[in-house]
Amino acid sequence: MSHASRSDYSTLQNADLETVRSAIRMNAYEGHTAGLAPGYLQANLAIMSDEYALDFFRFCQRNPKPCPLVGVTDAGTRILSSLGHDLAVDTDAPGYCIYRNGDLSETRPDIAELWQENMVAFALGCSFTFENALAAADIPMRHIEQNVTVPMFRTSINLVPAGPFGGGMVVSMRPIKEADLDKVKAITAEFPHAHGTPVHIGDPSAIGIADVSNPDWGSDVTFHKDEVPVFWACGVTPQNAAIGAKLPLFISHRPGAMLITDVDERANPPVLD
Amino acid sequence: MSHASRSDYSTLQNADLETVRSAIRMNAYEGHTAGLAPGYLQANLAIMSDEYALDFFRFCQRNPKPCPLVGVTDAGTRILSSLGHDLAVDTDAPGYCIYRNGDLSETRPDIAELWQENMVAFALGCSFTFENALAAADIPMRHIEQNVTVPMFRTSINLVPAGPFGGGMVVSMRPIKEADLDKVKAITAEFPHAHGTPVHIGDPSAIGIADVSNPDWGSDVTFHKDEVPVFWACGVTPQNAAIGAKLPLFISHRPGAMLITDVDERANPPVLD
Repeated sequence: MSHASRSDYSTLQNADLETVRSAIRMNAYEGHTAGLAPGYLQANLAIMSDEYALDFFRFCQRNPKPCPLVGVTDAGTRILSSLGHDLAVDTDAPGYCIYRNGDLSETRPDIAELWQENMVAFALGCSFTFENALAAADIPMRHIEQNVTVPMFRTSINLVPAGPFGGGMVVSMRPIKEADLDKVKAITAEFPHAHGTPVHIGDPSAIGIADVSNPDWGSDVTFHKDEVPVFWACGVTPQNAAIGAKLPLFISHRPGAMLITDVDERANPPVLD
Repeated sequence: MSHASRSDYSTLQNADLETVRSAIRMNAYEGHTAGLAPGYLQANLAIMSDEYALDFFRFCQRNPKPCPLVGVTDAGTRILSSLGHDLAVDTDAPGYCIYRNGDLSETRPDIAELWQENMVAFALGCSFTFENALAAADIPMRHIEQNVTVPMFRTSINLVPAGPFGGGMVVSMRPIKEADLDKVKAITAEFPHAHGTPVHIGDPSAIGIADVSNPDWGSDVTFHKDEVPVFWACGVTPQNAAIGAKLPLFISHRPGAMLITDVDERANPPVLD
């Protein structure tokens, strides 16, 4: 994140959705979106040719914890009408990763010039939603306290495949006090569109993680007394599967730089009124 | 339902899943599936050419209460692999309705001869699941007591459209004692894949129903003292939308004659282990 975007973040932190959306759309802000436009649903993006869209849809349907679908564009349009009155998937995330044949080829602040009429954009729920709810209930989020990216791990939990999409689940990990586990489960159960309840609590080796202090993505975080590792299905899973599928062209948001929608993050189902 | 199928019903009532599946597949049983193979997820079917599948998928994603997707076939196969080891969507429901250009053209005990490699079958959760759970909690289901089809109504609740699919939500209605409402809400909340919590409780006119004793489908049922009408999103909704879309060919299960899957009706997500 550049110094310019960091100074933008503080300006945008108290701004309304319209101001944040406009800054992102004009490429005036390219940073992360955590804490921006609080209360609005933020989403991961997965964009591909319609040739692969039906299989990707199947993949999400079969694996809803890592791939909680919250929106899909209509054919031939870049407007995600079910999640916003004027929400454009090609310009309204602060940054995009462009993968060609499974390899990251470039990042861009928008993909307006790459957009093709046969593209379909999928929006998937993200952990910001349940982290906000846990923080509001006084459950500390260690990676936020330490100002690092949440630790993420490949696991031995097999996904249900669909067409070229498959592989293992990616999880994120947060240390939680044992006494808070029931509260954490109850709160996250309210957010099926944001990965829902944990997929595993405790022994990392039970899900194929050899060393919980050595994440595959993100940073190691500190454990305090009486805390156990709690693992949630992670939004990197579908991205990882799409990269593994080696699509000729696959586009995601830049990590942490999400699509902020017009919809309340507690809406169920997540669609415009 | 013919006399032959009625006598079959009593035979099958205590049979295991394999026996029930086999009788249905051989067209030896063409009746309803309520109460058969208890504990296994039963599903509505919607079958169409892949040309319309992506829009139908979008329609279900945007309207999950009436259209709770529990499974989708892979391209070019009639086996619904995520819900059964050998579950064939063209033979394993007791009966099928064939619609051409929006009109019912015929019913058949199987659609093996109509099946085309470009067809996609969608399985959608059904109310049997939550009715079983309510009955187990001593909440009377009036239409079951009276041995009639649950009353269903068109409403003024607009669906979120997708491509040719849209229109209004269809609801089913069950009289519930006011004192039981919280219990009913809590129990049905556990079954998001079976229409979940009610969409409306009380005044029928608030959702565009002029006369609650005059259903659009199914039969009128008796209200007892202290009971209020409780309305749930109904699986007839997607069928109604697909008929309204006037697809050249659209196939559904025959009402009440569902696809019985290999998956536990409480599985979340509903996929094979």
